[in-house]
Formats: sequence, structure tokens, C-alpha cells
Amino acid sequence: MDWQAEITAARARIAGHIRQTPAARMTLGGHDLWLKFEQMQHSGSFKARGAFNTLLSADVPAAGVVAASGGNHGAAVAYAAAQLGYPAHIFVPEVSSPSKIALIERSGATCHVVPGLYADAMERARAHEAETGAMQIHAYDAVPTVAGQGTLMAEWEAQGLEADTILIAVGGGGLIAGSLACLAGRRKVVAVEPETSCALNAALAAGHPVDVPVSGIAADALGARRVGDICFGLAQAQGIASVTVPDAAIAEARQVLWRDLRQWVEPSGACALAVLTSGAYVPSAGERVAVLICGANPSPDPSEP
Amino acid sequence: MDWQAEITAARARIAGHIRQTPAARMTLGGHDLWLKFEQMQHSGSFKARGAFNTLLSADVPAAGVVAASGGNHGAAVAYAAAQLGYPAHIFVPEVSSPSKIALIERSGATCHVVPGLYADAMERARAHEAETGAMQIHAYDAVPTVAGQGTLMAEWEAQGLEADTILIAVGGGGLIAGSLACLAGRRKVVAVEPETSCALNAALAAGHPVDVPVSGIAADALGARRVGDICFGLAQAQGIASVTVPDAAIAEARQVLWRDLRQWVEPSGACALAVLTSGAYVPSAGERVAVLICGANPSPDPSEP
Repeated sequence: MDWQAEITAARARIAGHIRQTPAARMTLGGHDLWLKFEQMQHSGSFKARGAFNTLLSADVPAAGVVAASGGNHGAAVAYAAAQLGYPAHIFVPEVSSPSKIALIERSGATCHVVPGLYADAMERARAHEAETGAMQIHAYDAVPTVAGQGTLMAEWEAQGLEADTILIAVGGGGLIAGSLACLAGRRKVVAVEPETSCALNAALAAGHPVDVPVSGIAADALGARRVGDICFGLAQAQGIASVTVPDAAIAEARQVLWRDLRQWVEPSGACALAVLTSGAYVPSAGERVAVLICGANPSPDPSEP
Repeated sequence: MDWQAEITAARARIAGHIRQTPAARMTLGGHDLWLKFEQMQHSGSFKARGAFNTLLSADVPAAGVVAASGGNHGAAVAYAAAQLGYPAHIFVPEVSSPSKIALIERSGATCHVVPGLYADAMERARAHEAETGAMQIHAYDAVPTVAGQGTLMAEWEAQGLEADTILIAVGGGGLIAGSLACLAGRRKVVAVEPETSCALNAALAAGHPVDVPVSGIAADALGARRVGDICFGLAQAQGIASVTVPDAAIAEARQVLWRDLRQWVEPSGACALAVLTSGAYVPSAGERVAVLICGANPSPDPSEP
């Protein structure tokens, strides 16, 4: 796979549809960091990049698109489809947060709330695909998705990123796969996962993708049962570091982002920072570290600012 | 007054103490805008710039500093004093929000909650100054304060700002005074005030600063009873445009910032955007518009995300 070509093409393809999100270098939580604020992306997370790249590089059928997602992927597909004028059906499990359901509905997509869990929503989405011919949009383990997410790192480098090491939260692995594909080993990447949802960490330990139990504070965004094959292949080939953090560290990093920077993100958006603020990753002397803030579609909760 | 020299000196003086906040060009609320995210500044607003410039250009007495403020100025003085190792006493009226009092206390300042309103807090602050010899820090009508706030516009221009017109919220006028001093007429500036607290608008109409009634959604940040003389002089000399917006427009702009950009700011921070989203200011064809987002220390409220 010529990832450089895929990402370069994706960048040109989606340029008029996504935001170039701000990047900055600043002190945060006592660390001198390079930051990118991708939570300012359309639909509130990086997922819009992969959604636009997928839709713009395919022949979308008249029946439009379909996705199963309780969260950011569904919101991104709904947003991109609406912008491009395609009908979208998003199937969400009833456990999804009301705020994410509202976000999907606000985009103009038809949102189907399905009794049960994610697997039930996926089953209904597949049935919709079979019945109508709608195009199923994959959340993380497809080349157009990974190339789309890879545009984030290309954009960050074009903005002057000078870090040695980049900390990236991992769920199913689309974002880190795109980053690894873009960087091709030019910088160190550290995968950060919640202890409660760590599909990549488990896969690297086992030597192949394995099913993991999924729970915890960031499960609605990072709770993939099994990491994508594309992500696993790139992570294993590049021998990247993988670190897990407890849920309490993620909750604390979320408060640091609010208290110190007035950024109110969802738990997954604070996961990469948590590895620093908790001390689970200690940079070496002179190591220049970057933290990717990837999403901010929080559920209402009592710790709100 | 050689404002260029004052601002250049201020910029060098405070460089190691403040954040260079991110700036970006993006579509927001249907408008193609240049934005600066100054709510990411230390203490949550631009006020840290003036506070640092004041403290770093004075001989601070052993008794430290004192300020009266129910909000962002007090938080900025408390933060800057703590960073520079000076004791700080901040007098806040009992009507101040618990979140702003907590912010001041978190910085390590001594926070005195005074029965009554702002004038009562100011009276106690003046008594403290007289008794102890502590240095009183002015919120907006002093040269070091205005020069400090002016560094924001100098920084934005260095970041590549290309707007023709800049929309800036006004309370006592420190921020817009610094901006006008920096720009010296090179770009059009529009002052935006809540209808419920519009000291500059009233002063421009009267031909001199006048007392105005103060109330409404952004009164805790923009509710100056009378605009500063420095601000008035610069605004009158440059003949700037002044527009007021209803509180409901500010509340709606605040929701736009959350829904479209995941930025949760206080009402004053959304005031400049409100003039566009409400249609109170309609850019001409081709006019490139910039919006300054100036603060984000919201009180808890039921419209939270």
C-alpha cells in the first residue's frame, strides 16, 4: 500500500470539507507540549476526515450511506453525508448518550435507536445495507478511512510540528493507523489506551488481534472489541510503544484540560494527555512531546464545568 | 504616548509568562472567519497579559498586590502574582460566581468575599492598599494594562491575520484600547457590547465617557459602569464603529460556539461572534472578518453542554 500517495490524495480530496484545526505549542499540566485541537473538527472529532474521504472516493448509491455507531463515527458520517447531499441512516444502540443521538439527528440523518448493544445496531445496519443497497461506512479498518485520518498528521506537520514523540489515543485504531502511515517511522508514536478498553495493547502482546473486554469511562469512543487489521499491521511493523492508563487518570486529565486550558472534551479526547499527567509515560530529558486531542462530544455529566 | 514602543516592550516582557494562543481561519456559524482562541490564555482570559505587564514593569512592594474584581481581572492578577511570587489580595463582591472565586483561590491568592456589590469590594481593596502599601492593579484604564492587552493583536498579526475587520467585545475597554493602539488604524475595528452593558457605545454617543446602567448576561465580565479614558480617546480618535447586541444573541452565539466548534465560553467570550450570528453586523462582499474569543470562565448554568 502506498500510504503516502493515499494520504496526499485524501488531503486534496477533503480540503474544502474539513477544518484545518489549530495547533500550538504551550505548557499544559506542567508539561511543555505540542498540541493539536482536533476536537474543533466538524462533528467534534477527527472522524469527519475519514468519513469525507470515504464518501468522496466512492460511487455513493442512490440509497445513500449507512453506519452503525453509538458516537463519533456516526456523527461524522451523518455530517459528511448531509454536506454532500446523500441520505444517511445511522443505527445507534439504545445505550448511546442522548447528546450523541441529538448530534446525529441535528445533521439531518435518519437516526435509528436500536434495542440492545452495538452488535444489535450493527446487525440492523447490515440488514439496511442488504435491503436498500446503501453503502456501509467502516469506522476504522478500511483504507479510505485510515488515509482520511492520516491527513491529520500530514496537516500537523505542515503546521510546523517539531515533536520527537506523539501520544495518540487508540480505540479501533483508525487514527493511529493513519498517523503511522503518514509518519512512516519518522517520529516515535506512543499508543495510549484505557486499561478498560485496550484492544491494540492486547493485540501487540498476543502477536495478533484478539477480542478484549470493553468497559469504562471512554468505552463509547475507544471501546473497540478488536483492533483493526490495518492498525495492527502498521503498529507491529513499526514496533510502536503501547501504554495503558486507568480510568481515573483519564478523568483527571479531562479536568486538567478544563482547568488549565478551558477545553471541555470527552474522556477519549483526554486519554493521550492522561499518560503524561498520570506519570505512566515519562519523557526523557529533551524529548519533545506532542499530544493529540481528538474529540469532544461529551455526555452530560456531574463533573461538568 | 508611543503605543508601538509600549506594546513591543510589553510583548518582550511577558513572553515567557503568557501563552501564544492559537489562531485559525475557519467556517463558524456559516461565516468564513479568522479566529483567535484567547480563552486558552492562563487564567482563562486575555487579562493575564495586562496583569503580567503591570507586575513586570513595576517595583512591587513587599505587601504585594491588591485588586477588586468579581471575575477575570481578579483571576488574572491572582495567577500572575502567584507565578511571580508576590502575595495577592483579591476583593470580590459576594455576587461573584462560585467558579470565579474558586479560580482565584486556586491560584493561591487571598480571596476576600465582600458583602454588597463591586463598589463595596473596591472600597475594601482601596482600604487594603492604604493600610498595607500593596500595589493596586487597575483592570483596564492604565497604560501597562492597555499595552499588555495590546500584545494580543500584535501576536495575532504575527500569526498571519489577514482580516480587514476585527470584532472585539468591550467592557471597560482595556482589550479594545490595546488593539486600537496596536493597529493604529491599519484595520477596521468594530466594538461589540451587550445592550445591557454598553459603556463605550454610550460614551461615543455622548462625546465623552458617561455612567451607564449595567445588567444582563455578560455583566460579570463586560459590566463596566463607565468606559476607560484611554479606550475612549483611542476609539473616538479612530472613529471606530460600535454595535450593541441583545443578551439573547449572546446566548445563541455561545451555543453556536459549543455546537459548531466545541468551545464552551462565558457570555462575554461569545459577545463578538453574536454581532455576526444575530445579523447586527453584516459584512460587505469580500470583507474578511476576524472574531476575537476573549474569555471562558463560565459560571455553572443549566445550558451547559
